Amino acid sequence: MSGSGISRATTGRLPEYLTYVKSLPRDIRFVSATAIAKGLELGEVQVRKDLSAVCGKGKPKIGYDRDVLLYSLETALDTRSGCEAVIVGAGKLGKALLGFGGFSDYGISIGKAFDIRNDEGSPDVLPIEELPSYCSLHQIGIGIICVPPDAAQEAADLLVKSGVRAIWCFAPVSLKLPETVKVQYENLALSLAHLHQKVKSIH
Amino acid sequence: MSGSGISRATTGRLPEYLTYVKSLPRDIRFVSATAIAKGLELGEVQVRKDLSAVCGKGKPKIGYDRDVLLYSLETALDTRSGCEAVIVGAGKLGKALLGFGGFSDYGISIGKAFDIRNDEGSPDVLPIEELPSYCSLHQIGIGIICVPPDAAQEAADLLVKSGVRAIWCFAPVSLKLPETVKVQYENLALSLAHLHQKVKSIH
Repeated sequence: MSGSGISRATTGRLPEYLTYVKSLPRDIRFVSATAIAKGLELGEVQVRKDLSAVCGKGKPKIGYDRDVLLYSLETALDTRSGCEAVIVGAGKLGKALLGFGGFSDYGISIGKAFDIRNDEGSPDVLPIEELPSYCSLHQIGIGIICVPPDAAQEAADLLVKSGVRAIWCFAPVSLKLPETVKVQYENLALSLAHLHQKVKSIH
Repeated sequence: MSGSGISRATTGRLPEYLTYVKSLPRDIRFVSATAIAKGLELGEVQVRKDLSAVCGKGKPKIGYDRDVLLYSLETALDTRSGCEAVIVGAGKLGKALLGFGGFSDYGISIGKAFDIRNDEGSPDVLPIEELPSYCSLHQIGIGIICVPPDAAQEAADLLVKSGVRAIWCFAPVSLKLPETVKVQYENLALSLAHLHQKVKSIH
């Protein structure tokens, strides 16, 4: 994306546009910025600006050719080149993510999970000791932490040593990481609690 | 929470404070707004305002008594009274959420998943036909959608008919719902794609 002139904020919204365009019924040939803005509950001005940065202007009164827009979004997101992530922690959540097909839409594959144990003998779960060599060999950029909170920092340290540049952390902790490593926390319990609060506040 | 004078924005941040306070080592008796702000990467003024709405002012130079703050947060969040949610779709993700213990921190339990099939004969997976009666009997307020995208709207319709007031949707779709039903989308693939974008933009 470097030098492409697409802002970080726009880049951050591209996966949403891509999901939306992909979700359109197959017989739809054209899609307007207005329809996308409505479907994603975003401001129309913002959507026009974002799409224009990626795909130029749409045709007046018709919108964007769906296939052209799809191609432009995929190119901008670089989903064609691909990226592999690894999981640390092969419990229920780790295994669910390992088998979750949705990531491939974004050019990301999750091939293996690493754990201290592998009770079911799954071929996709490897001993944690093999993490550094696997990451090095496969040039892994992203590590996903699915271990319990008290093991999360240790898992993060090992991932950093193994050369990952980004960590997606499902454990409810605050990790200490080098500034060069990006981290994104995913707290599912917190998300559900937020929703619960919203419902409560109605009554 | 009605009439408690706690704003929606503050309420939305309470689970974060609760998680943070719970994560403190057991031997820590007092915690300051400054430390919480730093730990959660929030503005200190905001944290002071939020905590003050829930638990009054802390002691000067010492902060809040950890147990008092914990109790105040739990009371405000109503985690002591409890709430049960159900899952529609007992695939890998649904089963992972079913066995995920983290929700209990927020007073939310997930007892059962409903599906059209139950290959493994799990006692916590019930036939989808039983969803309405189960929801009615147990006064279920939240439904969690873990079915494939093309089955998500049907699942949502059934949950609405069954009386849920909120839907947490893991399928990458836009649901059509009555205005009275709150919805929160959780797109794990999108989250990972966002992280991937962040890393790419460094290089």
